[in-house]
This record gives sequence, C-alpha cells and structure tokens, in this order.
Amino acid sequence: MAKTLVFGHQNPDTDTIAAALATSFFLNTAYQADTEAVALGEPNAETQFALDYFKVSAPRVIEQADTDTVVLVDHNEAGQSVANLADVTVTGVYDHHKINFKSAAPMYFINMPYGSTATILYYEYKNANVTIPAAIAGMMASAIISDTLLLKSPTTTPMDQPALEALAELAGLDDYKAYGLAMLKAGTDLSTRTAKQLIDGDAKSFDMNGQTIRIGQVNTVDIEDVFARRDELVAAIEQELAEDGYDTFVFVVTNILDSDSEVLVLGANQAKVAAAFDKDLVADRFALPGVVSRKKQVVPPLTAAFEA
Amino acid sequence: MAKTLVFGHQNPDTDTIAAALATSFFLNTAYQADTEAVALGEPNAETQFALDYFKVSAPRVIEQADTDTVVLVDHNEAGQSVANLADVTVTGVYDHHKINFKSAAPMYFINMPYGSTATILYYEYKNANVTIPAAIAGMMASAIISDTLLLKSPTTTPMDQPALEALAELAGLDDYKAYGLAMLKAGTDLSTRTAKQLIDGDAKSFDMNGQTIRIGQVNTVDIEDVFARRDELVAAIEQELAEDGYDTFVFVVTNILDSDSEVLVLGANQAKVAAAFDKDLVADRFALPGVVSRKKQVVPPLTAAFEA
Repeated sequence: MAKTLVFGHQNPDTDTIAAALATSFFLNTAYQADTEAVALGEPNAETQFALDYFKVSAPRVIEQADTDTVVLVDHNEAGQSVANLADVTVTGVYDHHKINFKSAAPMYFINMPYGSTATILYYEYKNANVTIPAAIAGMMASAIISDTLLLKSPTTTPMDQPALEALAELAGLDDYKAYGLAMLKAGTDLSTRTAKQLIDGDAKSFDMNGQTIRIGQVNTVDIEDVFARRDELVAAIEQELAEDGYDTFVFVVTNILDSDSEVLVLGANQAKVAAAFDKDLVADRFALPGVVSRKKQVVPPLTAAFEA
Repeated sequence: MAKTLVFGHQNPDTDTIAAALATSFFLNTAYQADTEAVALGEPNAETQFALDYFKVSAPRVIEQADTDTVVLVDHNEAGQSVANLADVTVTGVYDHHKINFKSAAPMYFINMPYGSTATILYYEYKNANVTIPAAIAGMMASAIISDTLLLKSPTTTPMDQPALEALAELAGLDDYKAYGLAMLKAGTDLSTRTAKQLIDGDAKSFDMNGQTIRIGQVNTVDIEDVFARRDELVAAIEQELAEDGYDTFVFVVTNILDSDSEVLVLGANQAKVAAAFDKDLVADRFALPGVVSRKKQVVPPLTAAFEA
C-alpha cells in the first residue's frame, strides 16, 4: 500500500497537530496502514508548549500533498486544506466541524459534534482496543484542553471530560488543570507576534453564499491589550483583504479567563455581520459577551445571516 | 427532546429499511433518543419477504418530514432524500455511499466503505454494547445479503462476513445462504411489475457536472426476460425523461446468478455514458460482464467521465 499523508487544517492549532499524530499512529497500528502525520504549517506557541512538554517532534510541514491518498483531520472543507487537495483522493476524514464535502466513492468519514477531534480519536482507539502511547495521549489531552478551553467552552460535550481524564492518566499528567492553564497561557503571549501573525495565526476561510469570509481569532487574558494595536491590525487586515481576495474579515479577540469576545469587522458586509448577532458596529467593533467559540457561536449565526 | 425521524433513500431497498429500523432502535436504546423509523416508499418484494420472515411491520411511509430533526441512513445526497430536506436539520447520517453533503453545524456523520449500512450499524451496536433484538438482527442480516448479493458483489468488504454471521446467529438463521437465496429470488420476480415499476423501483438520481443522471437497476435471473419488454421499458423511460427533467436514464439489468449486467441508455449523453465504460452502443445497449454494483462499478466511471 502506498503511503498516505495525514494532516489537519492550515494555520494548525493543537487539535489539528495532535489529531494528525494520533490518527497516523492509530491507522498504522490498527489497520497496518502506511501513513505519516504532517502539517500545513509550523506549530503555534501553545502547540509548541505541548510538544515540548511531551517531547514530541513537530510533524513535517508540507506545501503540497505528494501522495495519491490523504486522510484529513480536524477539517473537511477544501478551503482549509492543502492547496492541491483536488489532485489527491481523500480516503478518510476525522472531524468535528460542519460538513462541506464531496467524494467520488464511499470512504471513511467520521464526524462527531464533540469538543475536539482528539475526543473522537480517543473513542476510536478504545473501540479498536489499541493502546495509546503516553506522548500521543499527552498531545490528545492537550488538544481537548485547547479546543474546549479546559472544558469551559460551549463546544464541550459530555464525551470530552471522560476522554480528557483517561488521556491525562495515560500521559502521566497528575494535574491536567494546572498543565492546561500553563499551556493556554503559553498560547496567549501576543506581544512577540506581528499584526499579520495575530490576524492570521488561527484564521479560516468560509464560503457563505458566494462571499469569502475570513475569520481569525486570538485568545488573550486582556482584550484591550490587543486593541491597543488596532492601527497595525487594521492595516494588516486591509492588506490581506486586498491581496487574497477575501470579501470580509472578522477578527475575534477572546478573553479566555472571562469567556467574552470583541469582534472587529472589515471589508464588505460589515453591517450584515453585526446584524447576524443583533449588534451595531461602533468603530467597526462590537462586543459578544459569553462568546468564545468560533465554530459554535460565530460561524452558525453568520452562515444563517448570509444564507437567509 | 422532540421526535426525530430516521429514514433511508427514496425507492427503499432492504438495506435502507433495515438501517432505519436498526438506527432508530440503537439511538433510542443507547442515547435515550426519541426517534421513529419511517420510509420514503413501500417495501419492494425482496424487503417484504424479509419483513414477513422476521415478522416486522414495514415502517410508516412519509411524504414530508414533519419534525425539526432527521437522521439519514443509506444515503446522504439531497436528491435521494425526502422532498423537504432543506426545511429540516440533519443531526446524523449513517451511510456507505459517496459523499455530497453540507451541514450548518457539527453533527454525527458516519460513513464507511462497507458492503451495507447494516454492517456499519452492527459495529456501532457492538462498540456501544447494545444487544440487537432478533428481528432487527434478521433485517440487518437481510440487508447485508441484499447489498452484497450474498457476499459476492465487489462491494463486499472484510467487515461484512463477520457481521453477517453474527447477525444470522442473533436472528436464529441457521442457514443464511439458503435464506438469502430465497430472499434474493423473491426480489427478482419481475413479471408482475409494470415497466414503470421496473425502471423506477430502485432508481436514484445523480448530479454529474450539472447533468441529472437517473440510474435504475433490476436484478434478475435472466437478462433477456427483461429485454423482451424493451418497447415498454423505452416508452416508460422516455416518458420519465420528459416529465421529470432528467437528462439521461441509465437502466442496468443485472443477472445475480452470473454477476453480469446489460445497460440500456436513453436521453442525452448516450455516447458519453458508453464511452465511460469503453463500450459502443448497439441499439442503445451495451454489456458489462462482471458488473453488479451500481455504486462501485457504475457510478464511479460515470462520475469520472462527466467531471473530466
């Protein structure tokens, strides 16, 4: 069997990197597959903290998929995937996002509305009776902590906590809360990042009724720290809108301690974006108290507003 | 929790009916869901044989989904589903076909390239430690027999035989081969069916690069028996092409004993359809020796030819 690459979305986050590592090991062990976990970018600061803690090497970064077959994790939409996705066959998907996918043949497509892809994979390992190595369990626990903000995000499901507890034990993490807080904080040191890195570090593109909406998000412990750099951020966003052909940029700044967000909207459709949340724009901004999840609390109202 | 309807594709076959029954019982038992198995049409002769054998009532036939939420089994494409699918939320899919699906939110979408949806469900029950009642096990065994032609179709996977054997035992089927042959034969008595029933009994529509291709299939033990009614069949197909706006009708007549098919093509794209299989049309027909599976051996070459 020819080699298959396993990778998550562009601008990889902790769940994307952990899911690629966990899926590749799972497929190689349970199905004697020949897969390699790779990534579409370098790890972010949070993920690097987890990789360092569990002494795991970051997956090799690829620009193009150079195998015939690939497995996608933590995404299923072409716009978030490798550039030459149309040239290869997707033989499997493990994901927990909304679906926008076509295949030419039956295939493995496992999507569940759990807090992280790592949660889905924990149960796949369990059902197949495959032992999770400690380092991979540590990365999977980190992924659940990251995607659910330590089980506090509204994306958290009843499946996540048991998975996190079991993985923490396998990984030898005696106090996963203390570890998780340290890891999340490692991801919020924004001072060393350029404006371009801030707006784009976690950004994803969504096609909404013909409009390309780019949604970036940063986690912080002080929202006004980020908006102190507003002029820089606006310039970076306007440059990206002009160069990359996005219609609209939605930049979500989230306080992970208070679970609140502030949103900056630039480009076309400004009023439509604000109206999707019943908000008015003041200086291109509006507040979203209680909102921390792009997937659960930002994308669905936007999709509904654009497709109405 | 409001009620959720569970149903398979239009023109239900044995796997679609069995999967709806099995999924509804599974969700109600494993997740305390409030679901009802329904169907988008009456059972065919083969399915009725199985329902009678295992003393199971046919699911209620619906025209429209009148709940907010639905679960799709044995299909995922809107063109094969309930007419008002766009008005409801799909919360789950269990399927084994190619994928063409969009959702607004994360959801359960379990697609595996196994021989039948019932095979997937067998393993879901097993992983969740839910006991399958004998009558449902009998319907699931019938579905595997139907979709894999007693494990002889090229759609058969290594997952199907163990599932069929376990389900036959749960159902108290001592000789599943003898039962299966009787069930398959019950489905091939074509003499009592009108031409319209023959062309449409198992037909599905596929969007291929903007063309709507309708593909019907009948199983028989004598292909020329079917083509003896060619004039009737052509008239029925031409009427359907005119009335329902399909571009092309591909009618596959399969000998389930010899595992061969003959294909009748009418409407637009005749030459393109034949060329997809490297065949020439003679009197709108061509032979496909060794071909029994629409999904595995008919749809993929057609899709490739239309999307080239």
